[in-house]
Amino acid sequence: MTAAVLTISDSTHRGERKDLSGPAVVALLKKKGFQVVTAGVVSDDQPKIEHALRRLAAGAQLVVTTGGTGIAARDVTPEATRAVCERVIEGLAERMRAQGARQTKFAALSRGVCGTLGQSLIVNLPGNPKAAKESLAAVLGLVPHALDLLAGKTGH
Amino acid sequence: MTAAVLTISDSTHRGERKDLSGPAVVALLKKKGFQVVTAGVVSDDQPKIEHALRRLAAGAQLVVTTGGTGIAARDVTPEATRAVCERVIEGLAERMRAQGARQTKFAALSRGVCGTLGQSLIVNLPGNPKAAKESLAAVLGLVPHALDLLAGKTGH
Amino acid sequence: MTAAVLTISDSTHRGERKDLSGPAVVALLKKKGFQVVTAGVVSDDQPKIEHALRRLAAGAQLVVTTGGTGIAARDVTPEATRAVCERVIEGLAERMRAQGARQTKFAALSRGVCGTLGQSLIVNLPGNPKAAKESLAAVLGLVPHALDLLAGKTGH
Repeated sequence: MTAAVLTISDSTHRGERKDLSGPAVVALLKKKGFQVVTAGVVSDDQPKIEHALRRLAAGAQLVVTTGGTGIAARDVTPEATRAVCERVIEGLAERMRAQGARQTKFAALSRGVCGTLGQSLIVNLPGNPKAAKESLAAVLGLVPHALDLLAGKTGH
Repeated sequence: MTAAVLTISDSTHRGERKDLSGPAVVALLKKKGFQVVTAGVVSDDQPKIEHALRRLAAGAQLVVTTGGTGIAARDVTPEATRAVCERVIEGLAERMRAQGARQTKFAALSRGVCGTLGQSLIVNLPGNPKAAKESLAAVLGLVPHALDLLAGKTGH
Repeated sequence: MTAAVLTISDSTHRGERKDLSGPAVVALLKKKGFQVVTAGVVSDDQPKIEHALRRLAAGAQLVVTTGGTGIAARDVTPEATRAVCERVIEGLAERMRAQGARQTKFAALSRGVCGTLGQSLIVNLPGNPKAAKESLAAVLGLVPHALDLLAGKTGH
């Protein structure tokens, strides 16, 4: 299974802040058997995020973003993800928030969405490295089956 | 209370697979006091599903579908249901997924929605017979009160 | 922190029913340190609710509504709120319903939404006074941080 990781952050993109969540997500994906084909950084700019998501989904089965899921003015990752996805899977985001709520009530403010684009699955994670890892862990066990279904292996 | 059951499946519609979930849902509804006025099968075709939902909602207070809620390419039941419903009731689908998660993490991949069309309530269930029965059981206790509200019995 | 409270109810607006939920919400907000700058009543009329929400959000950081979140024909508070909000925060409504489910399964029928309009946060509560207080209590601990984020205090 192939994966791409996209860190979405103005300050990281400008080089003012070290990217901690992207490498943390890459490490977790590798540990779980994914081949991480690309990892990059983009600013909190909706058209740029949409462009990056389309490009990454063309080359990886799983596209994981980190950052830009909150409610600050520059947080537009959910809007970009909804714009490019053909289908939204509410249950995955619900599951991430439900697991996150065990750690902190502030998980409810994460607006991250999960959806499909062609045969790829896009998953938005929060920008905080610890929260990003926990959110990814909450849904990673479902991803192989989801990717099979998207690839047409429906088991019928 | 009247109910209609619609099985949504290409293979069942072509006669290649026996419909197990439809009869299971019918049996549960009858056991809970519903009069099942019609039960049918339709293929995974969005316009045909929409047409069937509108027709069934005209003749039954509760319309229950089974199948087509996943993320495979042919799964379009949620899209058809959203297209015909005037209002979506997120809490009912959340409740079905939350109960389903006690059995299997894959419940998070069910995109089934619940909504209203006129005075009727439409509920999407998964295609797996066991999952369909469990999902229906998760919300059935709410249905009589919901149908009262839709019929204008608001208790004010 | 400033707050506005809007009771949404035909019968209360006509003077046929005493407003119990509005004062209950005001009391809880004051107890938690909010300055309640205005409290009013509007009928279950979508354009009037939208107008009131825009006006209140211009003068208060937190706008709390009570009533009109169910599935009866006149319940249009969620539609009005979605229409005026720039962003919907699904996790807050999920949290209110999840807490509500501990008291009654009927919490799943509440369609209340939470969202942002400019730097204000709008929260829909049910019309039942007890349910309104419990729903508000479920998210009130998150509100100060949410208002900070909306005011641009992102902590970066």
